[in-house]
Amino acid sequence: MRNLTEENVTEAVLAKLENCANPRLKQIMTSLVTHLHAFVREVELTEEEWFHAIGFLTRTGQICDDKRQEFILLSDTLGVSILVDAIAHRKPAGATESSVFGPFHVSGAPELPNGASIVRDPRMAANLLFEGRVTDPDGNPIAGALLDIWQTGENGLYDVQDPEQPEMNLRGRFRSDAEGRCSFRTIPPVCYPIPDDGPVGDMLKATGRHPWRPAHIHFMISAPGYETLITMLFTEGDRYLDSDAVFGVKSSLVIDPKPDSDGKLHAEYTFGLKPAVGADPNAVFTTA
Amino acid sequence: MRNLTEENVTEAVLAKLENCANPRLKQIMTSLVTHLHAFVREVELTEEEWFHAIGFLTRTGQICDDKRQEFILLSDTLGVSILVDAIAHRKPAGATESSVFGPFHVSGAPELPNGASIVRDPRMAANLLFEGRVTDPDGNPIAGALLDIWQTGENGLYDVQDPEQPEMNLRGRFRSDAEGRCSFRTIPPVCYPIPDDGPVGDMLKATGRHPWRPAHIHFMISAPGYETLITMLFTEGDRYLDSDAVFGVKSSLVIDPKPDSDGKLHAEYTFGLKPAVGADPNAVFTTA
Repeated sequence: MRNLTEENVTEAVLAKLENCANPRLKQIMTSLVTHLHAFVREVELTEEEWFHAIGFLTRTGQICDDKRQEFILLSDTLGVSILVDAIAHRKPAGATESSVFGPFHVSGAPELPNGASIVRDPRMAANLLFEGRVTDPDGNPIAGALLDIWQTGENGLYDVQDPEQPEMNLRGRFRSDAEGRCSFRTIPPVCYPIPDDGPVGDMLKATGRHPWRPAHIHFMISAPGYETLITMLFTEGDRYLDSDAVFGVKSSLVIDPKPDSDGKLHAEYTFGLKPAVGADPNAVFTTA
Repeated sequence: MRNLTEENVTEAVLAKLENCANPRLKQIMTSLVTHLHAFVREVELTEEEWFHAIGFLTRTGQICDDKRQEFILLSDTLGVSILVDAIAHRKPAGATESSVFGPFHVSGAPELPNGASIVRDPRMAANLLFEGRVTDPDGNPIAGALLDIWQTGENGLYDVQDPEQPEMNLRGRFRSDAEGRCSFRTIPPVCYPIPDDGPVGDMLKATGRHPWRPAHIHFMISAPGYETLITMLFTEGDRYLDSDAVFGVKSSLVIDPKPDSDGKLHAEYTFGLKPAVGADPNAVFTTA
């Protein structure tokens, strides 16, 4: 392994994996190195561009902290997250489609009774009543499912991004009842830009992309015997439904809240959970 | 751009580049996204593996500081650096082959007269005399070339990694004379492991690879009208010559120091510089 050239260096790097004891890791590294080298060759990446990429990746890591995950944002904006999600959740009929997890989930949101409001900021009004049902793919109710919900404030910022919002504002956990029903009150979701003051924002600007996401409410729904469902519900009429910066919109996930007799908005949705086969592929998120 | 699936998500992400004003960036991002998605599909990357990758990249960024560049190390150990180098420096006959820059160059090393020692640590003996010549590809001397040299101590650590070594130990800059000659004294180089207490070390261990580099001295040689040469010289007989962790060894860069009449080692080498065409592709390193 000497005198490596444009032609033989990939082979030499792959040969180094011969002592890799984990066959899955070997498979992943083989594919990764092959594609990474193919990319470098295809564009004939210059040293200056390589150096720029090193700086970009370094800044992306360094801006991360306990409240910001820029690499997830990078994965989201390059469509990698939704691709991984699609591969992991090939859904049967009757099971709700999944969407990206995003970087703003927080563990330990308060568990609240059905019908409660998740609004903790007195400046915001819980003008949307959401009523959900959790079922199996055949429509049979699932009792005791845990719904973990998170959403931005009216300014488009999550509580963890905004010192003005009380902690756990617009976060809550609810249990489905014997009929699989759950409900909560919240503000109507708003569209918002993903954080674009860091490397991912620089990438979006440089490539002529906007950072906006259509309005949505995040849901993570778990129940024993079912795959944890990570998804979000969008609202009809949002101007970014067809240009979501992180590629997360599915028509089946769009709700259309309507005013009730009391003038407040009302929306309903039925979540279909997929029976679990083996380990829950989303366990990684529930413990994150 | 809604209802994205395993099949159509790549097309949707590429379509987002339609407003990218920089055609080179558009080309790079198109190739990058295409290969990244192909990798994810090829291995059917699971959510758990994706999450692990996010954590790995984040740790890689966060361990970087003004003295440690873990992303360069990652690029080096995946063979990306030497591939970029090979593409950037397709050398004519008579021009010295290049090798990886590595993460340990420091700007502003002292400029010393020819024959001087670069050893500043009194515990180390300058037992190797190196005599070089700098020429054009036809063998004509290049006067006034600047040679920037760096090397580890006898313990395998660069000064910036080792608080016990004086600053600028084993670093120096020299100018070639009218005959293109230059010379300096140093310790015989030693083999050493790349820093393996971080994410890159974890990757090497997990894939069954060792972290060792064969003994070498780094050279960056610049002269007006020539491409800056970034290379390193290895020593004959080193046990890692054929398994360098960063894939940098070329037979043409191996020297074989021999004892002189005074019992000290002596080595010679002629560096051939490539005439510059347009901007210096290595300017990025000289200002790094």
